[in-house]
Amino acid sequence: MFVHSLSLDAASQIVDEALRQGRSRNFQPLTVVVLDAAGVVKALKRDDGASLMRPEICIGKAWGALALGFGGRELARRAEKMPGFMNAASDLAGGRMVPVAGGVLVKDDKGVIVGAVGITGDTSDNDEICAVEAIKAAGFTPDTGA
Amino acid sequence: MFVHSLSLDAASQIVDEALRQGRSRNFQPLTVVVLDAAGVVKALKRDDGASLMRPEICIGKAWGALALGFGGRELARRAEKMPGFMNAASDLAGGRMVPVAGGVLVKDDKGVIVGAVGITGDTSDNDEICAVEAIKAAGFTPDTGA
Amino acid sequence: MFVHSLSLDAASQIVDEALRQGRSRNFQPLTVVVLDAAGVVKALKRDDGASLMRPEICIGKAWGALALGFGGRELARRAEKMPGFMNAASDLAGGRMVPVAGGVLVKDDKGVIVGAVGITGDTSDNDEICAVEAIKAAGFTPDTGA
Amino acid sequence: MFVHSLSLDAASQIVDEALRQGRSRNFQPLTVVVLDAAGVVKALKRDDGASLMRPEICIGKAWGALALGFGGRELARRAEKMPGFMNAASDLAGGRMVPVAGGVLVKDDKGVIVGAVGITGDTSDNDEICAVEAIKAAGFTPDTGA
Repeated sequence: MFVHSLSLDAASQIVDEALRQGRSRNFQPLTVVVLDAAGVVKALKRDDGASLMRPEICIGKAWGALALGFGGRELARRAEKMPGFMNAASDLAGGRMVPVAGGVLVKDDKGVIVGAVGITGDTSDNDEICAVEAIKAAGFTPDTGA
Repeated sequence: MFVHSLSLDAASQIVDEALRQGRSRNFQPLTVVVLDAAGVVKALKRDDGASLMRPEICIGKAWGALALGFGGRELARRAEKMPGFMNAASDLAGGRMVPVAGGVLVKDDKGVIVGAVGITGDTSDNDEICAVEAIKAAGFTPDTGA
Repeated sequence: MFVHSLSLDAASQIVDEALRQGRSRNFQPLTVVVLDAAGVVKALKRDDGASLMRPEICIGKAWGALALGFGGRELARRAEKMPGFMNAASDLAGGRMVPVAGGVLVKDDKGVIVGAVGITGDTSDNDEICAVEAIKAAGFTPDTGA
Repeated sequence: MFVHSLSLDAASQIVDEALRQGRSRNFQPLTVVVLDAAGVVKALKRDDGASLMRPEICIGKAWGALALGFGGRELARRAEKMPGFMNAASDLAGGRMVPVAGGVLVKDDKGVIVGAVGITGDTSDNDEICAVEAIKAAGFTPDTGA
């Protein structure tokens, strides 16, 4: 079985493009992570002025998406409809599951999940915009769970 | 990049003034912590009669504010509007995020966050009053998230 | 049953005197905590320039002493002779047991344990000197486990 | 009190130069992190082929150095001389303290700690070489704890 997973080059490109998107839109300072298909960090950058827990939050957004296999918006919907489930999943994940927009799956041209992007710093909607644009710019397909 | 952070002298002054405020107003016994910009304790005092978990609670109020970059009232609002997010953030923080009033950011005259104060013991509103007064008395600007 | 435990006044006096001792001896920046007889923080100060994990370490020294009922030097001896026991105790304590000198029990004139002091920053021997002097200056009897 | 901390630009430069050093020396795939003075990730990259736990390990090397205030070689010496202390410190840190070479403090021209670099992937000695070269290339002074 071959697994298609993001290279460091692709991950670095996504991180830098997402930060550039946030700055050009005058968003709050962003923290951006790209995880590979195994859920492990390939690249992470935290912009100057971002607060202390931002790395954990963006990793939690991306990891939560990979962990359950759908984007952050679907996680948010389930957290609202089934809070008991999502609280339990959060505990089970040791906290690494943050059910809001801004966790976006990265898919290749066959629809295979090759990683995930997590962004935090501005509103969840704005975080997500940067993730979507950066994933597209790198030639992949974003899945927000919308 | 230079970061302005609270000195021990400033932190000690804030802790003592907050305890004095609480006593002069006949509040319940307070526990007061001042964290520096790195989220690490500079000074903490727990008044006689305060119960066992007060140090963790006041640290959680101050650390949560620094972790996300806004005061405890905004954390409380988000906990109400997005309980799934705040539960996840609390898990992620190992519990060190207590989303109620009484966690107050300390800003310098340029608006830079230089630390945070957390107080617990009386009502959250009263805890916050003592934090605000003590931060002002030390020449800094409080940000409650209101 | 009456339990004799340190007041905040006594704890504050010990913390300030220990910091003064360290500064007057040109020791590295110290972090000093005083726990009451229940093992809960009464007062903690971390001097300017102290590194990030110092609060946890000084609390671990003081709490470990209270947890087993003897000073840090005895904890260190047991860690050397019975490493399996002390590793297990550390796990059991969630890490809050640091078996080295610098964790000193505070006893009243009847020999009753009324709290503990933990200091970190310089060598363990120097940390302990400051704890011992500060406890004596406050009118209590130090027990280092020597 | 002003604290000098690494910018994202400086952190990114260090991460990229360290990866370049490793590749040019034919080292095993490296994972490199730069933490700011608060111990929080500014930038992290994990090269293609690096194994799963590499992010945690490099963060543990860098964080351990900042937590105690000296480089990884000094942590390693203490782990050898005082295994009880270092095991306890590791527990206390929730595992985020990896006492080997490859965790290097970053100091400015006044000797102030402004962050730390952690590298893992090849031997600890080789990891450290890449950290030292990258810190120098960015205009800072490395402190390995040697």
